Amino acid sequence: MTRIESYLNDTWQSGREPMIALVNPATEETLAETSTQGLDFTAALAFARDVGGPSLRALGFEGRSTLLEEMSRLLYEQRERLIEISIANGGNTRGDAKFDIDGATGALTYYSRLGSQLGTGNALWDGESEQLARSPRFHGRHLMVPLRGAAVHVGAFNFPAWGTFEKAAVALLAGVPVVSKPATSSCLLTWEMTRILVESGVLPAGSFQLVAGSAGDLLAGLGGQDTLAFTGSADTAARLRAGAGPVRESTRINIEADSLNAALLGPSVETGTTVWDAFIRAVVSEMTQKAGQKCTAIRRIIVPTSQIDNVQEALCAELAEVKVGNPALEEVRMGPLATADQLEDYRAGVASLAEQARIVFGDPTRVDTLGVPAGKGYFAAPVLLRAENALAAHEVHRREVFGPVATLLPYDGSVAEAVEIVARGGGSLVSSVFATDRDFLSSVLPELAPYNGRILAIDPKVAEVATPHGTVLPSVVHGGPGRAGGGEELGGRRGLSFYMQRSGLTGNRALIDKIV
Amino acid sequence: MTRIESYLNDTWQSGREPMIALVNPATEETLAETSTQGLDFTAALAFARDVGGPSLRALGFEGRSTLLEEMSRLLYEQRERLIEISIANGGNTRGDAKFDIDGATGALTYYSRLGSQLGTGNALWDGESEQLARSPRFHGRHLMVPLRGAAVHVGAFNFPAWGTFEKAAVALLAGVPVVSKPATSSCLLTWEMTRILVESGVLPAGSFQLVAGSAGDLLAGLGGQDTLAFTGSADTAARLRAGAGPVRESTRINIEADSLNAALLGPSVETGTTVWDAFIRAVVSEMTQKAGQKCTAIRRIIVPTSQIDNVQEALCAELAEVKVGNPALEEVRMGPLATADQLEDYRAGVASLAEQARIVFGDPTRVDTLGVPAGKGYFAAPVLLRAENALAAHEVHRREVFGPVATLLPYDGSVAEAVEIVARGGGSLVSSVFATDRDFLSSVLPELAPYNGRILAIDPKVAEVATPHGTVLPSVVHGGPGRAGGGEELGGRRGLSFYMQRSGLTGNRALIDKIV
Repeated sequence: MTRIESYLNDTWQSGREPMIALVNPATEETLAETSTQGLDFTAALAFARDVGGPSLRALGFEGRSTLLEEMSRLLYEQRERLIEISIANGGNTRGDAKFDIDGATGALTYYSRLGSQLGTGNALWDGESEQLARSPRFHGRHLMVPLRGAAVHVGAFNFPAWGTFEKAAVALLAGVPVVSKPATSSCLLTWEMTRILVESGVLPAGSFQLVAGSAGDLLAGLGGQDTLAFTGSADTAARLRAGAGPVRESTRINIEADSLNAALLGPSVETGTTVWDAFIRAVVSEMTQKAGQKCTAIRRIIVPTSQIDNVQEALCAELAEVKVGNPALEEVRMGPLATADQLEDYRAGVASLAEQARIVFGDPTRVDTLGVPAGKGYFAAPVLLRAENALAAHEVHRREVFGPVATLLPYDGSVAEAVEIVARGGGSLVSSVFATDRDFLSSVLPELAPYNGRILAIDPKVAEVATPHGTVLPSVVHGGPGRAGGGEELGGRRGLSFYMQRSGLTGNRALIDKIV
Repeated sequence: MTRIESYLNDTWQSGREPMIALVNPATEETLAETSTQGLDFTAALAFARDVGGPSLRALGFEGRSTLLEEMSRLLYEQRERLIEISIANGGNTRGDAKFDIDGATGALTYYSRLGSQLGTGNALWDGESEQLARSPRFHGRHLMVPLRGAAVHVGAFNFPAWGTFEKAAVALLAGVPVVSKPATSSCLLTWEMTRILVESGVLPAGSFQLVAGSAGDLLAGLGGQDTLAFTGSADTAARLRAGAGPVRESTRINIEADSLNAALLGPSVETGTTVWDAFIRAVVSEMTQKAGQKCTAIRRIIVPTSQIDNVQEALCAELAEVKVGNPALEEVRMGPLATADQLEDYRAGVASLAEQARIVFGDPTRVDTLGVPAGKGYFAAPVLLRAENALAAHEVHRREVFGPVATLLPYDGSVAEAVEIVARGGGSLVSSVFATDRDFLSSVLPELAPYNGRILAIDPKVAEVATPHGTVLPSVVHGGPGRAGGGEELGGRRGLSFYMQRSGLTGNRALIDKIV
């Protein structure tokens, strides 16, 4: 039995019994066990602040850029081994596993390149120098400097690789040490990645620590120079926000929560056109990739009333082709959900949606599986629902089923109704619009913007070259208002600001301009 | 008796008994009364979102720029009358009153000018367009659009004019309607300013509402498109942060809390030089302006051990000249504290500081006053304390006495010790450094930056032309990390982003670039 350890104070540490088991969600076979009982998180936070921060700041942006490049390279070298772990512990197909692991190395590489343009120091100017009073000597300019605390990252079970390293890349480049706590159920992959980095000796002292298991009292000790970035459910987010650090110490907190993301089909998109095909492909892919366990997945499919039957027919035909089963098999296109709890939530969620929409594809209580021991695995069938009155189907705009589930919603083809339906979701990470009508696109995009952190606009010119709806790009902001958590991650250089203090320096221009 | 009303749903509304009395803090004479009991804040928030938002967005930036200019002009026309109210209800000298009122019209004018450069629409680009995939057609660009909610502003008693309108200027320019709740004890001035604006007919429907009294359930109804900006104590800030909106709905919250701001005298600044004089002048001014009731006031005076006796002597000589009394008298330089509670807090606070520092000027239990009825008024003597061991005097770094009180702290003249002492405050709005040694200044500024939202650097070149330590400039960020609340207001165009959603638009470059 593999025993997973946490990496704290630059040593591998194992918690006391009882251990938590990590399983293969396709076979329910136990793969490893872990515990953080009795580990000293107060010391880990102090180690980050006192040792990790100085060692990272000693490198400057340039040195940290090199660090990220090395991290990316080291992980990429072990890609095949990591994919195998991801398939076994994550319920991932090979494609799902690559999406997670390549996302991690890609984010590290992206921020390495960005960092190589930021010079050898630790400070950045934000904006130009500005005269503040009558004298041309007295100026103001905003300086960005790394916070002196720890960056605590709490990740979700669905992306143990990307979720850990997209956050770490930004914090490390900013010059802030990381204490990373991935979700326990799938942390075998994060542990293995951390082992690769630790064994290589590339990590500066105290710059990266791993909590492999329960968070314990980790979040109780956060202060005004620390930051907390969380990805996961709205309920956990609410608990973290109400914690002592964020409430009493002004600990910065960034939340990226699940949301009811939408795909919107514009008016008069004909079947069989490139835009139509891209729309159908996107919906099916978002429903089934990682078994729909993506915070960016499409949950609401908003289509003109005149086209809803055609869309339903096309989606059902595609979904019927999706082979579910043990993701270790090459022919399997969709693996299981991550845990037994997730499967239970999926069933309860579909039942709740089915009170206001009818199921037009799939059966939440049964699914045919390939290559799985009888009765084993947390498998969920893809389920497509349809509501006839989009605005009356409240549950569809409120209840996120974190699995291969989406609901068809009709609208009248107008910008106003499309926006009203999208807005009902209370804030999303991303919505996609698939349209051929340029006026519709130009009108709908700025109206959708208040409710979305990202919008993918597909017209005939980009239908075949665009990145997918669910793909988070490091150069574009990831996050969304309201229900989506109200946070922002990534977005190129913007992402650094969460880990830096902006300070308005005012004084003698000649002196201030020489500081960086 | 003047009865103050709230302005909600574009009508003046009075709450039920019991009324709260507003007094003249110098004479304890009752000036007015108010209540918000029974007023419908749910309706007010809905009115802001449903009527105020659309009416502001119909104007575009250009129209809103004109609106702010008009507001500034209308208030400026009544400046003399407003100053009188500020003196009577705020305990302000004429200089204090102008600081508040001119700050309000100044912020409105500043944001009017900024808005005149933003075009006729409601959206702004954030950064340039960027290619996202292999095809040069597929690009991403970040759009900023006004949130569709209400901007709820909760102000502090010390700045009923500036505090209300520096916040309102930014929200209104962004295109977001304001529901403003100034502190009750000094809201006579805000009410009068609102009356001027309402009577002029300049305010678009639903764009500005005033809560003159208790907040009641105002904050219970905040959602994911609403924003909450608060200025005041750390305790109230903690309560607001733990509220349902910020915790469960991702309501954005910006906190500007009191902090233990510092003034630092560099090594080898000779007595009688311009930098020395500027330092002494700044400390005395910050201690006594508005009777020290400023969130930016200097609370910690950090000076080289070799100079501490000289600094003490100079400060005591200046403080001895400060005439305390009824601020309606021209010769009075410092008025009373705002309320009886504030006076009690001041006395308890000084007693607590005096356990770790000794009082070297002033007596917290008695003060000579001019032009005040015997035994009346909430007057506090200026008090200067001195600790011999700066790092051991924990209370000095923790306890803010919101009155004319500051503590002298010695250091060894090194950058490291200066930074360590400033950092002990746990995060400040602003620190000032007064120095002649350029190397000291260049080294200390970036090291102080993580702990300060703003830093004023005074060297011989700007000692006589710089704006004062306590003056918040609309072009520079106002806020600070940790203890200071972790927020950011103003900062020119940066301030708008709190009221806007950033959304990454990805798609056909030719289409997206034409949206704004």
